[in-house]
Amino acid sequence: MTQQIRIGLFGTGRIGQVHAMSVAAIEDAELAWVCDPFVEGAERTAAEYGGKVSTDPAEVFASGEVDAVIIAAPTATHVDLIDAAIDAGVPVLCEKPIDLDLERVDRLRAKAAAATVPIVLGFNRRFDRHFAELHRRVSAGEIGTLEQVLITSRDPAEPPAGYLASSGGIFRDMTIHDLDMARFFVPDIVEVTARGANTFSATARELGDFDSAVVTLRGAGDELVVITNSRHAAYGYDQRFEVFGSEGLLQVGNQTDTLVRHWGAGAVEALEPYQNFFLQRYAEAYRLEVVEFLMAVRGEPSRSPGFEDGRAALVLADAADRSARTGGSVTVDLSR
Amino acid sequence: MTQQIRIGLFGTGRIGQVHAMSVAAIEDAELAWVCDPFVEGAERTAAEYGGKVSTDPAEVFASGEVDAVIIAAPTATHVDLIDAAIDAGVPVLCEKPIDLDLERVDRLRAKAAAATVPIVLGFNRRFDRHFAELHRRVSAGEIGTLEQVLITSRDPAEPPAGYLASSGGIFRDMTIHDLDMARFFVPDIVEVTARGANTFSATARELGDFDSAVVTLRGAGDELVVITNSRHAAYGYDQRFEVFGSEGLLQVGNQTDTLVRHWGAGAVEALEPYQNFFLQRYAEAYRLEVVEFLMAVRGEPSRSPGFEDGRAALVLADAADRSARTGGSVTVDLSR
Amino acid sequence: MTQQIRIGLFGTGRIGQVHAMSVAAIEDAELAWVCDPFVEGAERTAAEYGGKVSTDPAEVFASGEVDAVIIAAPTATHVDLIDAAIDAGVPVLCEKPIDLDLERVDRLRAKAAAATVPIVLGFNRRFDRHFAELHRRVSAGEIGTLEQVLITSRDPAEPPAGYLASSGGIFRDMTIHDLDMARFFVPDIVEVTARGANTFSATARELGDFDSAVVTLRGAGDELVVITNSRHAAYGYDQRFEVFGSEGLLQVGNQTDTLVRHWGAGAVEALEPYQNFFLQRYAEAYRLEVVEFLMAVRGEPSRSPGFEDGRAALVLADAADRSARTGGSVTVDLSR
Amino acid sequence: MTQQIRIGLFGTGRIGQVHAMSVAAIEDAELAWVCDPFVEGAERTAAEYGGKVSTDPAEVFASGEVDAVIIAAPTATHVDLIDAAIDAGVPVLCEKPIDLDLERVDRLRAKAAAATVPIVLGFNRRFDRHFAELHRRVSAGEIGTLEQVLITSRDPAEPPAGYLASSGGIFRDMTIHDLDMARFFVPDIVEVTARGANTFSATARELGDFDSAVVTLRGAGDELVVITNSRHAAYGYDQRFEVFGSEGLLQVGNQTDTLVRHWGAGAVEALEPYQNFFLQRYAEAYRLEVVEFLMAVRGEPSRSPGFEDGRAALVLADAADRSARTGGSVTVDLSR
Repeated sequence: MTQQIRIGLFGTGRIGQVHAMSVAAIEDAELAWVCDPFVEGAERTAAEYGGKVSTDPAEVFASGEVDAVIIAAPTATHVDLIDAAIDAGVPVLCEKPIDLDLERVDRLRAKAAAATVPIVLGFNRRFDRHFAELHRRVSAGEIGTLEQVLITSRDPAEPPAGYLASSGGIFRDMTIHDLDMARFFVPDIVEVTARGANTFSATARELGDFDSAVVTLRGAGDELVVITNSRHAAYGYDQRFEVFGSEGLLQVGNQTDTLVRHWGAGAVEALEPYQNFFLQRYAEAYRLEVVEFLMAVRGEPSRSPGFEDGRAALVLADAADRSARTGGSVTVDLSR
Repeated sequence: MTQQIRIGLFGTGRIGQVHAMSVAAIEDAELAWVCDPFVEGAERTAAEYGGKVSTDPAEVFASGEVDAVIIAAPTATHVDLIDAAIDAGVPVLCEKPIDLDLERVDRLRAKAAAATVPIVLGFNRRFDRHFAELHRRVSAGEIGTLEQVLITSRDPAEPPAGYLASSGGIFRDMTIHDLDMARFFVPDIVEVTARGANTFSATARELGDFDSAVVTLRGAGDELVVITNSRHAAYGYDQRFEVFGSEGLLQVGNQTDTLVRHWGAGAVEALEPYQNFFLQRYAEAYRLEVVEFLMAVRGEPSRSPGFEDGRAALVLADAADRSARTGGSVTVDLSR
Repeated sequence: MTQQIRIGLFGTGRIGQVHAMSVAAIEDAELAWVCDPFVEGAERTAAEYGGKVSTDPAEVFASGEVDAVIIAAPTATHVDLIDAAIDAGVPVLCEKPIDLDLERVDRLRAKAAAATVPIVLGFNRRFDRHFAELHRRVSAGEIGTLEQVLITSRDPAEPPAGYLASSGGIFRDMTIHDLDMARFFVPDIVEVTARGANTFSATARELGDFDSAVVTLRGAGDELVVITNSRHAAYGYDQRFEVFGSEGLLQVGNQTDTLVRHWGAGAVEALEPYQNFFLQRYAEAYRLEVVEFLMAVRGEPSRSPGFEDGRAALVLADAADRSARTGGSVTVDLSR
Repeated sequence: MTQQIRIGLFGTGRIGQVHAMSVAAIEDAELAWVCDPFVEGAERTAAEYGGKVSTDPAEVFASGEVDAVIIAAPTATHVDLIDAAIDAGVPVLCEKPIDLDLERVDRLRAKAAAATVPIVLGFNRRFDRHFAELHRRVSAGEIGTLEQVLITSRDPAEPPAGYLASSGGIFRDMTIHDLDMARFFVPDIVEVTARGANTFSATARELGDFDSAVVTLRGAGDELVVITNSRHAAYGYDQRFEVFGSEGLLQVGNQTDTLVRHWGAGAVEALEPYQNFFLQRYAEAYRLEVVEFLMAVRGEPSRSPGFEDGRAALVLADAADRSARTGGSVTVDLSR
């Protein structure tokens, strides 16, 4: 591959930085434009990883100097930026969620479906080496027919109150990743049952949000998926996955920085607490997500999740929210 | 303790044998009467572990030769036998469930509450060394405030069709043990949400029963409990327990017969499959259950679960069944 | 088995108590005589587990009331008591070591070889469920040709100075168990290389003994066995075993009282420290050792180690001691 | 650091390729010259990672265009190349061993000691993340006084006969890495006892070499170190480390590519076999070794092992070889 892929990056916050670094490290890609209304952020990122600076997305698309764009700007901008990328005929990798409002997503849906450029959603966990291998082995039939999936997903600590207030609630902000992972193994979900609880966070309670939740999904083949979430975990970022089938079970446990175990007078075989949060735990997955996106850009076969996957996760998050608030289950049809 | 406690045993099936052996092994107890309408069973048990033989419970109670009774007869006989034990003023240990019909249980409820003799329910898992230690450490505050409980409980293989037909369904037959274990940690359950599925068993499907299920319970303190059940597991009896609190997490994993691990060309660090079923896995717990019952008989402090615990498990199983069939949640008040 | 085997017990110290309890719990055996020059010990043991009391071994043998004897008296008495048992035609189970002085052992050797009654040595670890299963799987060829054995064996804490002074040194007192276990897997040892060290114990240093040691054995088939010993371990009794073969590896790790694991802010997946010492760790093995001895007494096939195994362990311990003191290796021929 | 460090690379075999890749990936370093008498190798490497090509080391040093050199050429060239680097005043990273002949090493020793440029030896395992963290925690006093070190090191499969013939034997070729790791924790070794065995390899036997070995080292503080080696392991590359101290134990186990565990009818909790060999297992360590070397080149504090460490490993390997062949121990004084 001799041709450099020129990337335009929207947004230079935490995830934007991660993507800038990934692009800079990939041999046949380069950061061509960095765009952020907060111009100092754009300038700092461009200084470190290259690219021209802009505060206006239109300027980036009009330049004719980007072969693909990565959207890491605030959620509210996603729909418009995807729309503009389609108009410009430029492949796009957009961070999840597409939007917090399903109606806005659906207004773009037909256009996205008709788009000839790849529209890729940033569900990076699918590219985590461990989960990808789990998926490969399940797909290879190693545990027979898939019957149950258990996802345990607990954040190390609650985000700041300001973030929580605009997050759309635990299901749309946190569970949404687990909902996509559920669909990685059971794509066709037909029923959502969620229950939320308030265990420790006064902030969540005041916002009418939950800090603890259990979501049960039913797949079209009567598979059951259970997601257990908490907004905190004293021992670090807890990300476990278990797939149970007719012939056996496959699990992915948590990752520690090192293999060192300790034996002492008070406890034995003890590992150090887990990697603290998603930027560490999924560092490699973020990089591979971009690599896979670039494969899609080049027209090569790619496993990247697309617009419909992004929409499906939001449909399920909405359904979970409704179920948790009304006490029933919510039936969904992701194909409609 | 020099005085022997004379035990009357009703029922000489699989569990009856286990209890007979436990009684025989306890120094200050003895099998005085063995009662089973299937007289050969009673005779065989008495020949091995001692005691007189009867086919008629009334004869046992009338003999005046029993200081306590253990009921391991079919479920349908439980209510009447407990009733008779109360009338005879004899402490009773009864296998779960009290009955499959909550109305029958409730007709005995006031009398049981007024009884002056111990009425103990056979929820043996509470006496399992591992779960008991887990409970002790949670109670000691080691993980702070309890927020979530995850119970994974899978049988190695489906019971025979005949057994299934009269079992009352997966929630009343299998989940009921997990429901009691949930109450061991979160006694006051206020809401039950259950979802069942049909994944592999034609028998269960024909009976209108499920072979896979997820139950979410809510405690009065907004604790969430998740129970995951399957009627089969290729790798053996799967009995895991996880308690998550504000300060950490405690788990009990599965037990293997030995500590031997194997490293080979195909896999490493592999253990042999788990102990095959409950009689092995909970062998010690069955014995301790009887020991604890005898403490209650002697008027010593005892941790044995009682009639109300047996009733509560049935109320929760009924609620789970209703929730799974109707699609909503069921609110319960165990104190009413 | 309707005939009771009447046991005479010599010695009522810690191990004597364990054996008394084992005999009492076995249905077709009974404690017939309890013998200890410390008569209060004998009386207390007889009161709890049955049997007549004596302070004189000759009285026990002369009574004609013992079908087998168990020797748990001080090491210095072992040779004479085995000798007397042979003369009395009574099977004997003797605690290790036979004696600390190989010459004394060898004076009894021919007579022991000619004896028609079973002479069994108390190497209980061979009956530990985990090691026995390890042995079975190695013998079944699961890891191909045995090439290396690694034994890690560390006591929780140093014994009292008085005990150390008469123990015969670390190799004869502590390593001897590991040497027998080495021979369980590689019976024909031909070379012993040992190195001792003084790491923490002023007592050991003053006695000219070691508190840390490594022993390398060579088997006749060029198998290498490594034993690592320490007289202390902050985290409890450390008893690990690894057998490496041409096709793989089998290991037995340490045992904890329960399966409970803890996740906290400082460490995760932590188990409680190991069972504190051999009476706990090998409780079941002590019982099975007696069971297997009784099989030998009844003339049934038995896996019990015999006089030659007891002698071999002492030969190896002597060789280890010599090797550690001289700095070379010691060649042995256990068949001579 | 704006100034690029220009690297000259000698040798473009397997390890040479690894170092070329590491240099290319480091921002402030570049491959300036690639030198190999096998010119096609040099050309291919330069084409991929940059640099001019030469078949003559003298040309590289004379160019004045290298700020540091990395020696990955055959062992027989190491001494002369280090010598030339010292003469040229250029820092050098040399793969282990310095030479197979201690006399040749010692002829360079004084000159190396007097050299003003860094001479770094390629003991990459010291930079492995897991072992480095183990070292940090031991150094921090977490397990009190170090008393024993256990190193288990088994290669997945025997190298080709041609390689074996010129390798200098198992101790100089394979154990030498473990000997350096022993010195990482116990620098001052005073006694070496080694025993070798022939278990499976006809090639090793014909060459008078061993395929299985145990080495016991004694440190100046009476620490005991045990190294267990085998030239094959059915389950993959086995690299374990255990450090035992007065207050506890720290271990590093083996690494698998993923965290996926499998439960099936035949075995449970099974991981996939270990990473196949050192280029995978120590990939990161090879990179960090170069990073650390470049810190030394820049005059920054560096943990890189030096000439004396390279010599010490060879002294110990020689001693192990002599001990294994003569049957005694060999006393060493690394400071002389």
